[in-house]
Amino acid sequence: MVAQFIGVGVGPGDPELITLKAARLIQQADVISFIANADGESQACQIAIDVLQDVKPGQERIPVMMPMFEDRTPANQAYDAAAKAIKSAINAGKKVVFLCEGDPLFFGSFAYLLERLRGDVTTEVVPGISSVHAASSALQLPLTMLKESFAVVSGRHDSDYLIQTLKTHDSVVIMKAGRSREKILSALREADRIDEANYLEYIGREAQLIETDVDSLQGEAGPYFSLFVVIKSDRDRT
Amino acid sequence: MVAQFIGVGVGPGDPELITLKAARLIQQADVISFIANADGESQACQIAIDVLQDVKPGQERIPVMMPMFEDRTPANQAYDAAAKAIKSAINAGKKVVFLCEGDPLFFGSFAYLLERLRGDVTTEVVPGISSVHAASSALQLPLTMLKESFAVVSGRHDSDYLIQTLKTHDSVVIMKAGRSREKILSALREADRIDEANYLEYIGREAQLIETDVDSLQGEAGPYFSLFVVIKSDRDRT
Repeated sequence: MVAQFIGVGVGPGDPELITLKAARLIQQADVISFIANADGESQACQIAIDVLQDVKPGQERIPVMMPMFEDRTPANQAYDAAAKAIKSAINAGKKVVFLCEGDPLFFGSFAYLLERLRGDVTTEVVPGISSVHAASSALQLPLTMLKESFAVVSGRHDSDYLIQTLKTHDSVVIMKAGRSREKILSALREADRIDEANYLEYIGREAQLIETDVDSLQGEAGPYFSLFVVIKSDRDRT
Repeated sequence: MVAQFIGVGVGPGDPELITLKAARLIQQADVISFIANADGESQACQIAIDVLQDVKPGQERIPVMMPMFEDRTPANQAYDAAAKAIKSAINAGKKVVFLCEGDPLFFGSFAYLLERLRGDVTTEVVPGISSVHAASSALQLPLTMLKESFAVVSGRHDSDYLIQTLKTHDSVVIMKAGRSREKILSALREADRIDEANYLEYIGREAQLIETDVDSLQGEAGPYFSLFVVIKSDRDRT
């Protein structure tokens, strides 16, 4: 372990989907840090605990409590405080591993700590299995073949952007589908791709749900960790 | 190991970027299969060999020699023959693990075997770290933040499609950049995103090359395993 601050992906939920490198770095870390909810719970930390045995004796923890508001100010204050605590540990000669669900640089909080610490400490990033790849594996559907194109958008995008993306790209993953289900279902119908859509919740966890008949979904809200995967049914093989 | 035929991602090149599940399934497999070149060499198999110690005694191998022509007929014949050999092993009571570089369902050959065997045998897919996530980790650049969109296209797409995608999406990865470098560089200039582009070859392997000054690249051909990663420099944080 060379770098002082390392973002490590722990994968989508199944503890066995952590990489050998992630497991080794977590075991060797002086300090592990992670985003925690108001109750101090962390999915990333739980995944790491499930998989690890011989953790370094005296390993410390820096949980980062993340307030969930639309306004980014409290979140930025939490990142500032976390960066300060992490830097202080590094200045005391410790190596800090930051645990990230999925991949560290794909829609994660790690980016905000990286930008605060980069330049002051040495950094490294260890990729993890993202929910996009976990979803296509769970569906056993190729995400992309040959010269197909692929786009990832979010339920936060507006209807026109969703429809345009669905019409332009062969495969489309719509992340953060929880509170935008009605908008997404309308966009899928408008782009005439509702029959090609699949819906997934909590991939690789006990509560995993896969719905291939998306048309049957109600317009109510789903959990934050839900997504739609839209795959062309008539694929070009040349 | 429940399924009879399992596609397993071995990651982008660094043997430590294989998942615990992939390592276990490869060790327990009766037969491992993989795409090999004319010399019988396989990058995926090499990654697996680098990481494994206690392989199941008597483990067999089914290399799939893949002819590289624009015409898909010889490739389809090779997949037909491989599917037959794999099915024959499964009918003899063996479990077959198919090794895939990166992720099995992201631009890989596994899709062609899966479609030939699905229905006849039980199947499973274990995701792997794709080159997209390996690239953003190597660059230490967030692929996506908040409500950004992200698209993956290929050097096989035409100029207009590349330019349109570069103009529409915040982050863009252009895969299979080897023989299309000139077209891609022109598209990056046309879309005014050349300064936001990074070029990578052989990520996580000894021959890894990262070029952040893409404008300095010559228009000559690069290797097959090369890609461009284009990330917005002025990111919205709200």
